[in-house]
Amino acid sequence: MKFTCAKNKLQEAISIAQKAVTGKSPMPILQGIHISAKSAQLTLIGSDIDLSIETKIAADIQEEGTIVVDSKLFGEIIRKLPNSSVQISTIDNNSIEIICEKSKFTLIHMDADEFPNLPNINENMIFSIRQKVLKNMIKGTIFAIAQDETRPILTGILFEVNDEKLNLVALDGYRLALRSNSIDNDNTINAVIPGKTLSELAKILSEDEESVNITFTPNHILFNLGQTKIISRLLEGEFIRYNSIIPEEYNLKVTAKRGELLNCIERASLMAKDGNTNLIKFDIKDDNLIITSNSQLGKVREELNIILQGDELQIAFNSKYLIDVLKIIDEEEIILEFSSSVSPCVIKNIDNTKYTYLVLPVRLLNA
Amino acid sequence: MKFTCAKNKLQEAISIAQKAVTGKSPMPILQGIHISAKSAQLTLIGSDIDLSIETKIAADIQEEGTIVVDSKLFGEIIRKLPNSSVQISTIDNNSIEIICEKSKFTLIHMDADEFPNLPNINENMIFSIRQKVLKNMIKGTIFAIAQDETRPILTGILFEVNDEKLNLVALDGYRLALRSNSIDNDNTINAVIPGKTLSELAKILSEDEESVNITFTPNHILFNLGQTKIISRLLEGEFIRYNSIIPEEYNLKVTAKRGELLNCIERASLMAKDGNTNLIKFDIKDDNLIITSNSQLGKVREELNIILQGDELQIAFNSKYLIDVLKIIDEEEIILEFSSSVSPCVIKNIDNTKYTYLVLPVRLLNA
Repeated sequence: MKFTCAKNKLQEAISIAQKAVTGKSPMPILQGIHISAKSAQLTLIGSDIDLSIETKIAADIQEEGTIVVDSKLFGEIIRKLPNSSVQISTIDNNSIEIICEKSKFTLIHMDADEFPNLPNINENMIFSIRQKVLKNMIKGTIFAIAQDETRPILTGILFEVNDEKLNLVALDGYRLALRSNSIDNDNTINAVIPGKTLSELAKILSEDEESVNITFTPNHILFNLGQTKIISRLLEGEFIRYNSIIPEEYNLKVTAKRGELLNCIERASLMAKDGNTNLIKFDIKDDNLIITSNSQLGKVREELNIILQGDELQIAFNSKYLIDVLKIIDEEEIILEFSSSVSPCVIKNIDNTKYTYLVLPVRLLNA
Repeated sequence: MKFTCAKNKLQEAISIAQKAVTGKSPMPILQGIHISAKSAQLTLIGSDIDLSIETKIAADIQEEGTIVVDSKLFGEIIRKLPNSSVQISTIDNNSIEIICEKSKFTLIHMDADEFPNLPNINENMIFSIRQKVLKNMIKGTIFAIAQDETRPILTGILFEVNDEKLNLVALDGYRLALRSNSIDNDNTINAVIPGKTLSELAKILSEDEESVNITFTPNHILFNLGQTKIISRLLEGEFIRYNSIIPEEYNLKVTAKRGELLNCIERASLMAKDGNTNLIKFDIKDDNLIITSNSQLGKVREELNIILQGDELQIAFNSKYLIDVLKIIDEEEIILEFSSSVSPCVIKNIDNTKYTYLVLPVRLLNA
């Protein structure tokens, strides 16, 4: 194998493929990046079996070939090279030689045959969506996935396609995040994608107008970004029927400024850290929201102007769950819907349709 | 006690005084900030006994008084308040009340009498130096202090005043860093200041033209920045007679570009991480510096144009010590002086007088 390519292009490709390399795999070959040079193109693959990322860049191929090199060391070497043309070739003793200006590295490589094959997916695009839209939907839901593995299905995000809409849903038993976007497809699909896949995908998705094509198979999902393909297994099992959890009715509706509410809750939570309860109390009455909290060290009272439609209410929350939601919303004006002190709070924006967040209250002994 | 002051001024003062609070003290009172309100001024003090920082801000004092409050929690509360006027007053139950717009905190305070007194220092300025100059001198030496406590004196920096010069010297047995600056004083003083004191001081020193006045006592040093005073005990014992370590003669002199040399060494060190030796070899010959390193994973060869005066030489180093020096130097053209493969390398800038760095080589078995 022998090829020449631009240092910065190669560095970028490594950083993409590397996102699938965990570095903690029991199989040493999976700490490597698979590089194949063929017909004017370099293909880099990183994989941890569950997630594989393949990316292509143009290169001047003088001799075709395939190798696997240690992902971390190879990535560091290329990153530190001068911004110039890099020549890489296989030499004796299972090694490659990397030459860039006056730098010359010799690096052991592994046997490419040991690298697992990518799942064989017959690309059959179900729908296409703008990369920045999908990126936003992932960021707007991924914080609500379960952190523990007791119910593995909840460590992923549900991709639900129906009624020409794509819904992303995450929930962990204490809160739920739902983001929706219209798509040009009338299939019905339910698939749960591992959180790890989507957090890496979100880093790769661009902020501009390009699209990503998505293909589902019974066990896998394929995101095709053009030069880059991300293939992930799906999580097995049924996702929770989340629709039945979201209340359709409410007894009181609060309209509030997101930024102000976030600041009040963050301040109140400073006093709620004692014993790790994060417990804050809302007292909603007369276009006023009073937030209080206390601990052995002291107490706090915050007051916020709101618009209240409906009855007054006292309700308590784990402040962390509210802060997570309020930080992820872009809009400045939001709506909170409540039914009782033991029913979930639903958080929406004024225009309503793009997202729905739900946070369960903390039941107080004296409530 | 009762006073009103601007939130951002108070926040700034807390962040200064807080730098002396370690949070790990066995005395709970030392996790607090001492606040006294007197004659239109608020004085905040943080201390860990060895290091004390006192800072003053203007405030509207309605009732004089003194308290101690938990440094971390109080700092977080003030930081999160809206950028407005803050009113703080003592209330019942050993508490203070903090009011800012619609936020109201109640916070337990401690007994100010338990707070240790600052060392009683009769201010008697020995010399004055521009803050940004001292800041630079500290940054340029502190990386070379000893990290382990086997020789406590080496965990500090020597402040040496003589011949109308201030020298800062740090050394750890493997390398030495010396920065000098002329001052308007002909006393002779030797004092060793703890590294922790100087690293916090460097964060407080400003980047502009203001000066800092320095007073020495047999056991303490006082840095007076105007509104802020930093008082630190000195380290006890004799510092190493560093002058005898710095070679005055050399057999070969290399002139090199600092940035290029740093890049070459950083790349070479990628291959030197195996077994944590960081071992890289220099081969100096014919206006060329060849840097090599190897490990089980591969090897590297870097080549750099230099100007060589003197004989050729092969010498090996721990790359970390060279990288530390090359990163801290601003100048682009530097001089390296060598005597033999087992003698220290001296690194200077072209103009020479402001700094001297010294790095010991690694003795090779085949050298």
